[in-house]
Amino acid sequence: MSNPTDPRAARSRAAILVAARSLLLDEGPAAITHQRVAQKAGVGRATVYRHWAQPGHLLHDAMTGIEMPFFHEPETPVRPWLRSHLQRLADALTTPQIAGVLLTLMQGALRDPAIAVQRDECYEDISGKLRTALALAVANREIELSADPHDLSTLLVGPILYHTTMQARAVSPQLIEQLIDSLGEWHEDPAPRAARP
Amino acid sequence: MSNPTDPRAARSRAAILVAARSLLLDEGPAAITHQRVAQKAGVGRATVYRHWAQPGHLLHDAMTGIEMPFFHEPETPVRPWLRSHLQRLADALTTPQIAGVLLTLMQGALRDPAIAVQRDECYEDISGKLRTALALAVANREIELSADPHDLSTLLVGPILYHTTMQARAVSPQLIEQLIDSLGEWHEDPAPRAARP
Repeated sequence: MSNPTDPRAARSRAAILVAARSLLLDEGPAAITHQRVAQKAGVGRATVYRHWAQPGHLLHDAMTGIEMPFFHEPETPVRPWLRSHLQRLADALTTPQIAGVLLTLMQGALRDPAIAVQRDECYEDISGKLRTALALAVANREIELSADPHDLSTLLVGPILYHTTMQARAVSPQLIEQLIDSLGEWHEDPAPRAARP
Repeated sequence: MSNPTDPRAARSRAAILVAARSLLLDEGPAAITHQRVAQKAGVGRATVYRHWAQPGHLLHDAMTGIEMPFFHEPETPVRPWLRSHLQRLADALTTPQIAGVLLTLMQGALRDPAIAVQRDECYEDISGKLRTALALAVANREIELSADPHDLSTLLVGPILYHTTMQARAVSPQLIEQLIDSLGEWHEDPAPRAARP
């Protein structure tokens, strides 16, 4: 166990985390070994081992510091917000860095309860924002929602993640419109219409 | 390099592959190290190293031998076939073994061209069967398809994979009906109707 009040230990811990995050983003989770991380951080293997006896815990802590560029706070009108944020998500998931971190979370969560907690937080963040967005759209009379609010990220993010990582293709604007359409009956631009004579 | 005509080398190679597959299914890809595989196969580390100098290649070859229990040949009427096969897929993906192998394929394919080939074959197998099934449904006048035939696995398998591995929940029959409904306009049981007076 390292002493958390020792400034040298704190510096080496921070350097190890930076190195581990960089290896995770560049090469994927298999690169998170004591040896590779020590080399990258410029510290001894024993130092890495002293902070994180298990590579799984280091992977967990490295992932905690990675910001996933998913959804911002929803805005009205909701449909254009949804369209641009789904396209941004689709673009991010075509990079091996972002797709790799998300798949590492999903893969790690299958067997590691601490990573399952991170996966659940990431899921709740995404699906909470989508629920808020669609509740706004309902209140704003943009849509008569037919999808279950708890299925929103399954219906929107699931196809995009699969398309980029399993089918390995960029997501077309048409596919995004189709996913948005599948949530219920949208009314076109209700605000401009209300202003018509 | 090992000599492929040496029966002892062939036996140890087979034992190593069995051990690697078992570790992959039970513990995930992180367990595919020379040390763990050698221990499990009851051979020396040097023997594993002689056959597979890189753990990534061993992971690749171990995955080649795992049969993914996805879709059988399509049958008419297509809707009940689709319903039962999507439910079977959803059930399989709630096990860490099957979900783990699929996520390993998706994760590994991001950076390893040989695993990308396996991922593409798996994708083609799934999406080819779904295209055949929906072509049958169109020919059988069960559906007026509005989805792009190349998006079928994105629209059906993507949400199921996300729901089981990211949302970590079993897929309800209602969600499966909703996914099937989203493909186009289905006609109810066309065969019995044609027989009506």
